[in-house]
Amino acid sequence: MDKPLILVCNDDGVNAPGIRALIEATRDLGKLLVVAPDKPQSGTGHGITINSTLRLNKLEEAENLEVYSCSGTPVDCIKLAIFKLLPKKPDIVISGINHGSNASINVIYSGTMSAAVEGSLEGVPSIGFSLLDFDINADFSASAIIARKITQQVLQSGLPNGICLNVNVPKLDHSEIMGIKICRQAEGNWEEEFEARTDPTGKEYFWLTGTFKNYDSGTDTDIWALENNYVSVVPIQHDLTAHNALNKLKDWNL
Amino acid sequence: MDKPLILVCNDDGVNAPGIRALIEATRDLGKLLVVAPDKPQSGTGHGITINSTLRLNKLEEAENLEVYSCSGTPVDCIKLAIFKLLPKKPDIVISGINHGSNASINVIYSGTMSAAVEGSLEGVPSIGFSLLDFDINADFSASAIIARKITQQVLQSGLPNGICLNVNVPKLDHSEIMGIKICRQAEGNWEEEFEARTDPTGKEYFWLTGTFKNYDSGTDTDIWALENNYVSVVPIQHDLTAHNALNKLKDWNL
Repeated sequence: MDKPLILVCNDDGVNAPGIRALIEATRDLGKLLVVAPDKPQSGTGHGITINSTLRLNKLEEAENLEVYSCSGTPVDCIKLAIFKLLPKKPDIVISGINHGSNASINVIYSGTMSAAVEGSLEGVPSIGFSLLDFDINADFSASAIIARKITQQVLQSGLPNGICLNVNVPKLDHSEIMGIKICRQAEGNWEEEFEARTDPTGKEYFWLTGTFKNYDSGTDTDIWALENNYVSVVPIQHDLTAHNALNKLKDWNL
Repeated sequence: MDKPLILVCNDDGVNAPGIRALIEATRDLGKLLVVAPDKPQSGTGHGITINSTLRLNKLEEAENLEVYSCSGTPVDCIKLAIFKLLPKKPDIVISGINHGSNASINVIYSGTMSAAVEGSLEGVPSIGFSLLDFDINADFSASAIIARKITQQVLQSGLPNGICLNVNVPKLDHSEIMGIKICRQAEGNWEEEFEARTDPTGKEYFWLTGTFKNYDSGTDTDIWALENNYVSVVPIQHDLTAHNALNKLKDWNL
């Protein structure tokens, strides 16, 4: 039987330690094609490049491993890999390991998770992995073990149609992790502050900064799991319809 | 009573005819603050600017109308308006009128819709409007009537918490529109093609092009409504959890 074809992406860029950890953790599980941004693309959400050009650059070719950088977003990377580079759909898309949390509402801003969502849109079982540590020198050893385990599980059992996984790993040694919990996305958002500065010509500009607020007291959420030393796994869908609200709106007289 | 405070955004840029049509259609309904990108930002999804600076530029100040351009994405515009410019939360966010469809899966790539989703994340009733016509000189007269009507309805009745509306208007005269339908998002995706070209130095680059595919034969979808000359209204949520899949995944032995 052919080895599984594994497509790897992230949003921190092809040279980030997190994606290198993911490649090493899964390298013997199949044939890896890595297509990842040539620069950091954190916070690009589900952005795509439609008013500009895209470049691909082959960086590495080894046994069962090819690595490309792409000038676009993580979603561009997935589209280029599937529609341009690969002769057939990959068996799985894995994205990450992200430097920093994608739990709760962070999922919606995350390029790493959007790569996984795009994979699921193309009918490919897809997973995004994130470590709760923004440090460029973060220790990915526990998250790499988790990523390998969940990748093996999904290669074996697949995923329900149209669903990908958002996996977040607490910043702990592997021995301190209590287990893996299937969760829902906690209800939260960012309370933003814009730091105003003055440029050398006297004009004002802003930096986005903010604080994450969790409004959810449930014990079945990703935030709860992570705060209690569990890995959180949230199934994510690309159908954004608020099905519960459909009937309510039908009462409107429009 | 104070006039309602209406925050206006889009992704085609502050000078696009679509946002001008939306401003004119709603101008007498309240005090309008327009904060929109200084250049086209179509397809930026829920992207935010975290590794770079943001600029705001006041373009216009008139009775009950202030207009700013912003160097960032539509979501940046909403965050800057709510957390930097406004003394209190707006009563409503309206985004558009987008040049081109945001029905079905287009919602996930759309900066116009992401501005509305961001509004709902901040607890503000929010609506994105799109016309099924990409032309820069599209006729917005019917969509402007629809946008005004739905804005008035939402100002009056509010929206369920955490939910915004994705409104798409067919390219028709107002008299030809059959009515307004509450719908779910049709299951579809884009079959992409990358057009390869060669730059003047002999290096290859790509343009993203593609064809939308509707896989959904339901008569309760936005695509069905639009094809049958109705306006489609889809309630959109930012909780991406696939709640139906939670129990299925709990059977895994992780």
